[in-house]
Amino acid sequence: MKKSLVALAVLGGFAGMAAAQSSVTLFGVVDVAATYVKNDDAKQKKLTSGGNSTSRLGFRGVEDLGGGLKASFWLESHINVDDGTQNSSGKFWHRRSTVSLSGGFGEVRLGRDLLPTWTAFADYDPFGTVGVGDKGRLFNVYGGAATKNRADNIIAYFLPSTLGGIYGQLSVAAGEGNDANKYVGGRLGYKAGPFDVTAAYGQTELPADDYQVAVISGSYDFGMAKLMLSYQQTDYLSNKDKFLGVGVTAPVGPGTLKLAYNRTDGEANGAHGDADQFAIGYVYDLSKRTAIYSTLAYIKNKSGASRAGNYSVSDIAGRPMTAGEKSTGFDLGIRHSF
Amino acid sequence: MKKSLVALAVLGGFAGMAAAQSSVTLFGVVDVAATYVKNDDAKQKKLTSGGNSTSRLGFRGVEDLGGGLKASFWLESHINVDDGTQNSSGKFWHRRSTVSLSGGFGEVRLGRDLLPTWTAFADYDPFGTVGVGDKGRLFNVYGGAATKNRADNIIAYFLPSTLGGIYGQLSVAAGEGNDANKYVGGRLGYKAGPFDVTAAYGQTELPADDYQVAVISGSYDFGMAKLMLSYQQTDYLSNKDKFLGVGVTAPVGPGTLKLAYNRTDGEANGAHGDADQFAIGYVYDLSKRTAIYSTLAYIKNKSGASRAGNYSVSDIAGRPMTAGEKSTGFDLGIRHSF
Amino acid sequence: MKKSLVALAVLGGFAGMAAAQSSVTLFGVVDVAATYVKNDDAKQKKLTSGGNSTSRLGFRGVEDLGGGLKASFWLESHINVDDGTQNSSGKFWHRRSTVSLSGGFGEVRLGRDLLPTWTAFADYDPFGTVGVGDKGRLFNVYGGAATKNRADNIIAYFLPSTLGGIYGQLSVAAGEGNDANKYVGGRLGYKAGPFDVTAAYGQTELPADDYQVAVISGSYDFGMAKLMLSYQQTDYLSNKDKFLGVGVTAPVGPGTLKLAYNRTDGEANGAHGDADQFAIGYVYDLSKRTAIYSTLAYIKNKSGASRAGNYSVSDIAGRPMTAGEKSTGFDLGIRHSF
Repeated sequence: MKKSLVALAVLGGFAGMAAAQSSVTLFGVVDVAATYVKNDDAKQKKLTSGGNSTSRLGFRGVEDLGGGLKASFWLESHINVDDGTQNSSGKFWHRRSTVSLSGGFGEVRLGRDLLPTWTAFADYDPFGTVGVGDKGRLFNVYGGAATKNRADNIIAYFLPSTLGGIYGQLSVAAGEGNDANKYVGGRLGYKAGPFDVTAAYGQTELPADDYQVAVISGSYDFGMAKLMLSYQQTDYLSNKDKFLGVGVTAPVGPGTLKLAYNRTDGEANGAHGDADQFAIGYVYDLSKRTAIYSTLAYIKNKSGASRAGNYSVSDIAGRPMTAGEKSTGFDLGIRHSF
Repeated sequence: MKKSLVALAVLGGFAGMAAAQSSVTLFGVVDVAATYVKNDDAKQKKLTSGGNSTSRLGFRGVEDLGGGLKASFWLESHINVDDGTQNSSGKFWHRRSTVSLSGGFGEVRLGRDLLPTWTAFADYDPFGTVGVGDKGRLFNVYGGAATKNRADNIIAYFLPSTLGGIYGQLSVAAGEGNDANKYVGGRLGYKAGPFDVTAAYGQTELPADDYQVAVISGSYDFGMAKLMLSYQQTDYLSNKDKFLGVGVTAPVGPGTLKLAYNRTDGEANGAHGDADQFAIGYVYDLSKRTAIYSTLAYIKNKSGASRAGNYSVSDIAGRPMTAGEKSTGFDLGIRHSF
Repeated sequence: MKKSLVALAVLGGFAGMAAAQSSVTLFGVVDVAATYVKNDDAKQKKLTSGGNSTSRLGFRGVEDLGGGLKASFWLESHINVDDGTQNSSGKFWHRRSTVSLSGGFGEVRLGRDLLPTWTAFADYDPFGTVGVGDKGRLFNVYGGAATKNRADNIIAYFLPSTLGGIYGQLSVAAGEGNDANKYVGGRLGYKAGPFDVTAAYGQTELPADDYQVAVISGSYDFGMAKLMLSYQQTDYLSNKDKFLGVGVTAPVGPGTLKLAYNRTDGEANGAHGDADQFAIGYVYDLSKRTAIYSTLAYIKNKSGASRAGNYSVSDIAGRPMTAGEKSTGFDLGIRHSF
């Protein structure tokens, strides 16, 4: 969204002249799609929010403290534009609420934020882990850990951007009395021209076992197409999920064609729980800020009834999938950023 | 409120120069009144929010996509300024959350929004369906339909403004598994100089019967006064409400005098359930954006105990009215728009 | 925070040129600290929000109506930046939601706001009644009164600022059917150069007795240090709390040293319930808007088990203190205003 954060940035420009230390940016996305979903025989037509990019409203700002030091803040809410609600987490600033100090040493960031393991997983999905093609639907969390994509009470350190393409972060989230919220994880990557590779590891110490996530992802931009790959392993007791995702984005006509194939090889309590996902989409850009998009996606919950209940792949439709079922989704939507 | 949306529109102006595609407007209303209400012997003095105009905070923006095409968004929250809460619906963006594409063909709008039947009813109330004089207090919904004034998951089409005074919209709301939220309705109107007429019809397919609303409204501005008329019929099983509303607004001194007489002839389960409402108010304009206002209103629940429980007219005070009771309300408030 | 409200004020400046009546200011604070707390043997490491100044986001504006008359509004939300939630009161605009008319006569303000007794208590705490050093931890409310620091449904009158240093306010909050929310109170003060003194009284008529708060506070700025004193008495049935607070702030190096000693002599149901609090902190200013701060604080719940359950001093850690226990807190945080 960075390119499309315009609104108050203009003000920031004026503020820059009038009062050097001031800059607040208002930014957001409104994204609504007409969506059709089908779980075997269960069908639903509905309006959904955030099929191409999560609908949001945010405020962020940077203050130059001199000597290369900067203070900044970021408050970002989640909006369901289809029904006017905020995120079901009950957190108004669900997506991010942080304060940072940054400089030559890197950045220290405090608050609620994304986890490094999620970033390393999600940034390499042509569908941005949203909508019917979201590869996160094959990401199953075990042991009741609340540390899938975001966590509260994070102290994070980010490497500076001056390390010749090396980037990384270390994040620790305080559980504050709840083990499910506790997290320690890091991410390390290297980016050079069209090439980008990232590895991340994170764990949540649950009473019965450590819930562990390890992920390695990479992308290469061939110009006519960009290839994305992700491999992720999740461990908790006898549950072991191996996720493999392949994605392609390619500029076609006035927009972008997106393709993804993802699969999970799940070993929940010793039984196999496998699932396949295919997704194809096209994003037609009306401007840098506005697009019409459409996606067709399909999940096949491969294994038999023997492991039903032990392993659940998130479906596309409202009704949960049962073992062996397939789920299909189609959307046609508008995404507008500001 | 359109005239009073100033704040960030100025920014929009600058943005217009600096980056042609950018314009975000911050807008809002804060309206608080000291209110006295009485239901027969039950009295209450209280502070209320939105006696003249619903208190709100919103962000909206328009992007020019070229070739007459525009993308726009609208996020509008409801505020109870008397106690700092948002709307009791739990939807932060309770009033509106939409994304639109518009052009010579009209406008396609997706999200949570007003219903055409409500607009055709509410736009012809001198008291704007808020405060103690709100004519919506005589509008009774049957069958548990959740489609009185707004709905989630709407796909709407609006006619362009180039049809020689003809305007209209068609709105379909997906129920998403809940019949009470489903809605199909439309509105068609004609406006020429001082004359304006609108008709609308909408229905919600409930399991037992279709809940139907039909309304025809009009206004004529004589200069020294503006006359407003509304007739609305509501049908559900054996419940049939016939609403008639007459309103007058007249510029008097530095403000506006407002008068209304509304009545419902209600046939709930075969028994008559009638109610009368009188309201008089004065809005003293301190500026285009700020006014002091006062309203005196009265509802008489005419019928006897035989139909109590079958038909409920929304009272002004906190305690529900019982059959044959009357409810009186008086407010004195400040409305400030930004 | 007034000095640091920059962002949209700049817009206000432009608005001043383009449309004289317009000015909306966006303002806020993001403040997060790493905090260590200990209640006897119970320890916790956590991230907390608002250790130096309550994290918030707000919008406010003033309109010049001519002839010295002004209309203004103020909407201020509370943010827990550590976890992205709003205030646990469920009120999004928890901190303030008001509309005002002001002029030579003073100011009439309607809505949710601070209470005069709280202002007279809180404004004389070097730690601003936030964080581990918050003197409000020794302020115990009796009888279930909901009128400690803020109330809904307030009609308030403020004296004009032209009375030669005399200032004051009278606030009445409608209970709206709940005695615990009802409040009548006032504040009167005098400020001249380095000297400032305030007295306030407020009461909530509860069914069993009036819950009464009386407070007298003052400060003197000696230049090398500023001394703050507060004495407050709370009465409800046989519960009588006498609070005494002494605070000092002193410019030391590039920041401010803060010291406080507070004690409550509590007579709850005839038994003594005393508590002592010590706090020391340093705020290192990185700029006018941004600071790093650290605080060490200690509460000693002096009395014996005989009065446990009758008198509770709010602890620093998550677990409630029991009689005779002590609570220790330490924080290290960043506060950034915008």
